[in-house]
Amino acid sequence: MINRILIVGTGLIGASTGLALRAAGFTGEIIGTGPTESTLTTALQMGAIDSFHAPADIANPAHHAAREADLILLAGPVLSILDWMHRLAPILQPHQLVTDVGSTKLQIAELAKKLYNQPGRAHFLPGHPMAGKESGGAALAEPILFHNAMWLFTPIPTTATTEPHPHETEWRALVQKIGARTMDLAPARHDEICAWVSHLPQMLSTALAALLEDTFAADPAARDQIAAIGGRALRETTRLGASPYSMWRDIALTNSDPIAHTLHMLEQRLAHLRENLRTPELKEEFRLANQFRTRK
Amino acid sequence: MINRILIVGTGLIGASTGLALRAAGFTGEIIGTGPTESTLTTALQMGAIDSFHAPADIANPAHHAAREADLILLAGPVLSILDWMHRLAPILQPHQLVTDVGSTKLQIAELAKKLYNQPGRAHFLPGHPMAGKESGGAALAEPILFHNAMWLFTPIPTTATTEPHPHETEWRALVQKIGARTMDLAPARHDEICAWVSHLPQMLSTALAALLEDTFAADPAARDQIAAIGGRALRETTRLGASPYSMWRDIALTNSDPIAHTLHMLEQRLAHLRENLRTPELKEEFRLANQFRTRK
Repeated sequence: MINRILIVGTGLIGASTGLALRAAGFTGEIIGTGPTESTLTTALQMGAIDSFHAPADIANPAHHAAREADLILLAGPVLSILDWMHRLAPILQPHQLVTDVGSTKLQIAELAKKLYNQPGRAHFLPGHPMAGKESGGAALAEPILFHNAMWLFTPIPTTATTEPHPHETEWRALVQKIGARTMDLAPARHDEICAWVSHLPQMLSTALAALLEDTFAADPAARDQIAAIGGRALRETTRLGASPYSMWRDIALTNSDPIAHTLHMLEQRLAHLRENLRTPELKEEFRLANQFRTRK
Repeated sequence: MINRILIVGTGLIGASTGLALRAAGFTGEIIGTGPTESTLTTALQMGAIDSFHAPADIANPAHHAAREADLILLAGPVLSILDWMHRLAPILQPHQLVTDVGSTKLQIAELAKKLYNQPGRAHFLPGHPMAGKESGGAALAEPILFHNAMWLFTPIPTTATTEPHPHETEWRALVQKIGARTMDLAPARHDEICAWVSHLPQMLSTALAALLEDTFAADPAARDQIAAIGGRALRETTRLGASPYSMWRDIALTNSDPIAHTLHMLEQRLAHLRENLRTPELKEEFRLANQFRTRK
């Protein structure tokens, strides 16, 4: 039974998970830790966690909260998850489950194969809820953040004879209880699909917003006109431009090749469209795009 | 006084204008015409127009409804507006006002300078409401479509001594009465700014949706995963992919150079970002994008 959960990183996703577990009737203890005391205090005040261990405590990798947790949820950016995986692996026991919410999964799954899921080691289940907002932080956390969202898992292959880890079965049920749908994918496939549905839209939105900011930096009159005239089209295509670098740096570093591939494909597609603004080929592009949207 | 309005083209914008004028208390007559009888029937049933002249009637350029209107609103795609401008110019009188809702303004303003706003000719005021939906048609028309939207005008320069046309003053007041804000721009400037805030987001969204449709055409499993996993980011960046070619063909044809310029700039920006996924330059792109969004 999962009775004690440690959430490492109580930003938007970590704190929302705490709130969602409570709202779904989880009655065990939820403890928080993470690098920033003010974030932990906010999460505590919102009721996302019952108590926390401040940054000073967590410098010690043998932190007793980790040893005593049934489930540890790593909820920071990807590089911090990889770092915590290194720190926790030697001090945990086989009955414990470690899972995460990292946006890329290949590097995390590779490390999990090495450091976890071995005789004498804790069990690791890589996870990734497709939920978020363009701004992060505990203050924006909501218990309904995962309602109808997809919570992906990229389980580490085990021998066919192995029983599933009991906490894994329970955690999957809890994730559904907080309103999420679940799906299992191979880690490389996860990173490839997420490059298309999440990382490319982000980079596109960042590039468009940065381009507009740069192009009209020296022309305040144009800037005012753009702000006054731009409607929903501009608002939606640049919305993700508000996303924090701190999170996306780690995604770009740990999924560079798939992201670069999708960007390169889009550059070529835009060039094709540009060269065909006055030809019937433009009609074919609209037909394909219409078809994609009809399917959605 | 504007007592009789002829709306040419009762699709989303034309029919919404009719509904909005009625909702704002306009008590004059609103007549519709256009190429498609079913569209006119829908507009009539919604109350956007009081009566209409069917396609068969409008083949005659000396159509009496145009002669008897105080204001003629041309509300089709840009090429049809240019066509109607040619057909109406010889049969109208100086007391009449012709205005339009076309998405590009340079070619319309150039033609207006030649065929209207001359001794013995009707007055032409180019206009462009920044409102719409990704799907068109009379059935989606709403009286509130222009609430808080920007309705742009690109007036034809006249000599300083000329009094404004009385119907122009009245039409501008009606546009504000239906909830829109207004702004005057030079036609070339209009087309340049709209390339950035409207045409580029559209082409981008079309290219992204067409690319996804094309890339996964032969892989139904991936297509299902994309549909299941894609969240708000994908939905928003591809939403405009549903827009109809019929309208955008005319925009692409009449604003090719500014659109091609913005597309080329974006292609270069995406390449720059792609080449810097693993460098600190990525941080600068996010900083600029964050700044753009803060300003909005």
